[in-house]
Amino acid sequence: MTAFDAAAARERSLLAEELQDAWPVLSPEERLEGLRLLTHGEAEDFLLGLPARDQAELILATNPGERRSWMRLLPPDDAADVIQEAPDDEREGLLSLLDEPTRKEVAALLAYAEDDAGGLMNPRYARLRPDMSADEAITYLRRQAQERLETIYYVYVLDAEQRLLGVVSFRELFAAPPRKTVRDIMHTDVVTAPEEMDQEALSRLFAEHDFLAIPVVDAERRVKGIVTADDILDVVQEEATEDIQKFGGMEALDAPYLEVGFWHMVRKRAGWLAILFLGEMLTATAMGYYEREIARAVVLALFVPLIISSGGNSGSQASTLVVRAMALGELRIRDWWRVIRREVAAGLALGAVLASIGFLRIVMWETVFHTYGDQFLLIALTVAASLVGVVTFGTLAGSMLPIILRRLGFDPASASAPFVATLVDVTGLLIYFTLASLILRGTLL
Amino acid sequence: MTAFDAAAARERSLLAEELQDAWPVLSPEERLEGLRLLTHGEAEDFLLGLPARDQAELILATNPGERRSWMRLLPPDDAADVIQEAPDDEREGLLSLLDEPTRKEVAALLAYAEDDAGGLMNPRYARLRPDMSADEAITYLRRQAQERLETIYYVYVLDAEQRLLGVVSFRELFAAPPRKTVRDIMHTDVVTAPEEMDQEALSRLFAEHDFLAIPVVDAERRVKGIVTADDILDVVQEEATEDIQKFGGMEALDAPYLEVGFWHMVRKRAGWLAILFLGEMLTATAMGYYEREIARAVVLALFVPLIISSGGNSGSQASTLVVRAMALGELRIRDWWRVIRREVAAGLALGAVLASIGFLRIVMWETVFHTYGDQFLLIALTVAASLVGVVTFGTLAGSMLPIILRRLGFDPASASAPFVATLVDVTGLLIYFTLASLILRGTLL
Repeated sequence: MTAFDAAAARERSLLAEELQDAWPVLSPEERLEGLRLLTHGEAEDFLLGLPARDQAELILATNPGERRSWMRLLPPDDAADVIQEAPDDEREGLLSLLDEPTRKEVAALLAYAEDDAGGLMNPRYARLRPDMSADEAITYLRRQAQERLETIYYVYVLDAEQRLLGVVSFRELFAAPPRKTVRDIMHTDVVTAPEEMDQEALSRLFAEHDFLAIPVVDAERRVKGIVTADDILDVVQEEATEDIQKFGGMEALDAPYLEVGFWHMVRKRAGWLAILFLGEMLTATAMGYYEREIARAVVLALFVPLIISSGGNSGSQASTLVVRAMALGELRIRDWWRVIRREVAAGLALGAVLASIGFLRIVMWETVFHTYGDQFLLIALTVAASLVGVVTFGTLAGSMLPIILRRLGFDPASASAPFVATLVDVTGLLIYFTLASLILRGTLL
Repeated sequence: MTAFDAAAARERSLLAEELQDAWPVLSPEERLEGLRLLTHGEAEDFLLGLPARDQAELILATNPGERRSWMRLLPPDDAADVIQEAPDDEREGLLSLLDEPTRKEVAALLAYAEDDAGGLMNPRYARLRPDMSADEAITYLRRQAQERLETIYYVYVLDAEQRLLGVVSFRELFAAPPRKTVRDIMHTDVVTAPEEMDQEALSRLFAEHDFLAIPVVDAERRVKGIVTADDILDVVQEEATEDIQKFGGMEALDAPYLEVGFWHMVRKRAGWLAILFLGEMLTATAMGYYEREIARAVVLALFVPLIISSGGNSGSQASTLVVRAMALGELRIRDWWRVIRREVAAGLALGAVLASIGFLRIVMWETVFHTYGDQFLLIALTVAASLVGVVTFGTLAGSMLPIILRRLGFDPASASAPFVATLVDVTGLLIYFTLASLILRGTLL
């Protein structure tokens, strides 16, 4: 490589970086144009690094000749994803562009749900027979490497019926004495995933074991393909995004923020917002029930936002912790009793902190501004007692809601901050006005 | 392997699964006991799959002999993590258990921040010279494989000064004609990470390129080590957990929910809760400012929770979307104007939806229960107009807060649902009572 070549290569790779940077805000036409400015090799690398949605969009925007060569560039698992992203009437056409053996592999992959281990796996993996010597195995693998294997890092040892006997890393094979048999080098305690394992469970399996690949097996322990850590990386990001969006109180978007259509996004947000609004209407009903108390002591109304929001905030903290711990597999439904004890204790402690601040605030304001009248101590007591009650209830509700949702078969991440806040707002009002009528009876009420 | 061996192996691996399952709720002593029930190989695999915190805890709980053999089992990057997790006065001792070359490698790794590329990398990687033939390269790698390399999937081609010239995948080397030189097979457009690259940026690099490993280079492009996708998987989970916990309105916990100490957890929650409470106190001040209006028209107080919570909920949705999109690199600070236009439009649309529901609700209740008096239409109008204003403001505030926080150098994820809700509550009250005094002047007020 001459110095000139090196400079040219650097310039081109700057171009690729710029394209990467501007990608989210480009139209499909601009993207195609940008890709055509890159060298052939760079354009291929760039395309391979894109999410399946963008790959499908680009491939469908090209002319038939390019379309064929791009489809043939994709490994079978990616080709299957692209076909799944394409509109129904384009799928058959895209499939027909592949060569015969790949078409069969992709058609088999399309039979799996996109979110299952079967839908994520690559059917091309390196395989060996147990009775080969290390030397024979390396020669045999060298032949397999001519095909487009995704990785030869782990090599799977199969019997005559394609059932999994063990695994050997390429490094181990390389390091072994040449005449030792594969059977003597391989590990038999292989971590496998069943075909229908959900992608969230699969990502936990990867997190537990720190492997770069896990084989997918059917009920007879026949290897159907392998899932690699880089595919799982995308899954983990996607699942976290879904959870975070649900947790923010909306349906998960299925595309990047700037790329999703405006009305599509509004619909995803309006649904939950309207449901929460209907729930929150109960606060107007609850407040209406205490209208006479409020008329007699308007001072009570002043603290309503403060008290109910404290319940919502503490509930949001608790549900965040529990939702995330469940997503990571750190908490299971049967741990509910431990969670309750822990959260009630935490709620009482946190409530006491806020109650002290609230009590001091009212006493100080009264001393300085004389805002709250003669009964300011009783009012401060009412607010402080309500804060302990509301924060404890908020913490309890926030921690139990995700567990109850999972028990009922829903996604715990739906126990969003706004959902918990709405639940706690109504209860918070009841706690506050009940305590007020107990403490202030005979004085203000 | 006989059928008996196979059955015994399955039983042992069931034991490993059970241990995995019970792990979060076991005490350090129980964990050690459980580990001792496994075969040596299983116990090693199990230990290697644990997070560094747990590894450190276990290793410190064992006797000196076991401690040495376990420390020597760890690859250098994991050994460095374990030493970083151990208490200060144990670190030197753990380091001294390693063999001489590993100790040097680990000491070098300990100089990096834990969250940087340098702190995540493994200094052992496979390397070649450009002028070797494919055949020579394979033989040379076979010798390197005797050392404990983490992966030989990618092989890096270095010049005499250890500077990176290119990369070749092992598969390509294997598939190449035996006499072709490495220089002619390698790719020169290598994606690299600088030593000090933050782990979040590094995980985006992995997401963009779908690689199983990325080399870490210094300013002179000398390769210092490689980061593999399985390490990044842990990073991505950890970053998502931190973001989600911050987003729930608390400081991120640094350990699984059930394992973190009670008072430690309460402190992590009390800080933000108290700050939010102080902010929310402004609502009491704002309400106090309108005390006369409330006394004259108590009916106004009834809708306070409904209106402010709608602002909080819509703000929570908007900030969720923006925080996540920024974390994934889909949105940058300079996109702020696009976000504003989009979110104001979304806020108006969502506000209109809630306003219609709210208006209908008041009119229906009045028709059925006669709750709101003669001026119910004006009240309904006040509530509806306030909803449009509050939801639009909430959406705008929720989407801009994360962008402003990042601009000021803070973590956008601190724009939590409770933070946004608190911000919007105070403003929501001002919007509501201002509109009320405009619309109801001369009638109720």
